[in-house]
Amino acid sequence: MRISELSTASGVPVHTLKYYLREGLLMPGEATSRTRSEYGPEHLERVRLVRALVEHGGVGIAGVRSVLAALTAPPPSRHDFLGVAHCALPASGDDAPPSAEVTALLEDLGWLVWPEAPAARAVGAAVAAAREAGVTLDATRLRRYAEAMHDVAVVDVEDALTAESPAAAMHAVVVGTVMVDPVLLALRRVAQEAVSAQRA
Amino acid sequence: MRISELSTASGVPVHTLKYYLREGLLMPGEATSRTRSEYGPEHLERVRLVRALVEHGGVGIAGVRSVLAALTAPPPSRHDFLGVAHCALPASGDDAPPSAEVTALLEDLGWLVWPEAPAARAVGAAVAAAREAGVTLDATRLRRYAEAMHDVAVVDVEDALTAESPAAAMHAVVVGTVMVDPVLLALRRVAQEAVSAQRA
Repeated sequence: MRISELSTASGVPVHTLKYYLREGLLMPGEATSRTRSEYGPEHLERVRLVRALVEHGGVGIAGVRSVLAALTAPPPSRHDFLGVAHCALPASGDDAPPSAEVTALLEDLGWLVWPEAPAARAVGAAVAAAREAGVTLDATRLRRYAEAMHDVAVVDVEDALTAESPAAAMHAVVVGTVMVDPVLLALRRVAQEAVSAQRA
Repeated sequence: MRISELSTASGVPVHTLKYYLREGLLMPGEATSRTRSEYGPEHLERVRLVRALVEHGGVGIAGVRSVLAALTAPPPSRHDFLGVAHCALPASGDDAPPSAEVTALLEDLGWLVWPEAPAARAVGAAVAAAREAGVTLDATRLRRYAEAMHDVAVVDVEDALTAESPAAAMHAVVVGTVMVDPVLLALRRVAQEAVSAQRA
């Protein structure tokens, strides 16, 4: 298909597609003349992914580039996906110093996670920020949140491990992490209303 | 204390404090002369809250204003906090049309939530966006996520219901929702690594 057809099929304006091409977020089509290129289903899939990440995932251009790089990097084993994916998706506070409290929490939960891992540092930073804003977040409450997120992670990891190829597994982890975050946060609000209604 | 002391105590530069004052995010101090005002502990608390929301909660100025308005609005009952809080914290997609799938999910889970509630609409929009990006999110997976977030919400609501005053409950819901979101998302990544390590 031509770029105008790619635009119609994806719902993304031609000038945005040209921007994606310039930024390297969309691979070039096959040149059929000096001014024309042909695009295939892989281009349509890529445009949908980029658009979803930017518009709904709230990911910036640099983040999209990291996600795409992670999708093309060959992961050494399925279990290494997560490390690669988490490094590709920098989170606020993942360069904070490791927190003694988070280290104790991980040990207490029996989670085999290196306390210096970026994700663990991000937990420490987010907890500190919440407390600074006056949220009462004691060890018990933090542990209960961690246990609930463990249930979420079991679903996440199962999905990645049952993917049909390493590339599909990488896609499941990276895109699934970014795009399911807003689903979880919206579900949290609905669940709050449900729990509140139940207790009223 | 003077504005310079408020700056030292909060770690927020004087020019930012003046910006907060201009924007109405910080209430004026008590004027002690034509050019001087005196600030108290309530100002320090407010500055810490605004800073936490802006810097760590990723909330824009309009969002901060909504949170502050919600904190000062008298909630009709403790169980109405959530509706007020959720309306004060607009989420992406909360104006999307109600989704038949989310309505079915709520019914299936036995959650007493109006399917037209903004939070329920936001779930539908986030699910659609995730699928558009190629995430395999079937009804079973969505339900498992919902159940995990129910565990999170139980902790959230308990915290709000045990608050010592209506104002404290409002603070717990609004600030706790905004500031605990990043804690949950960071915990999700750590838990993914833990689950993955366990299965390897």
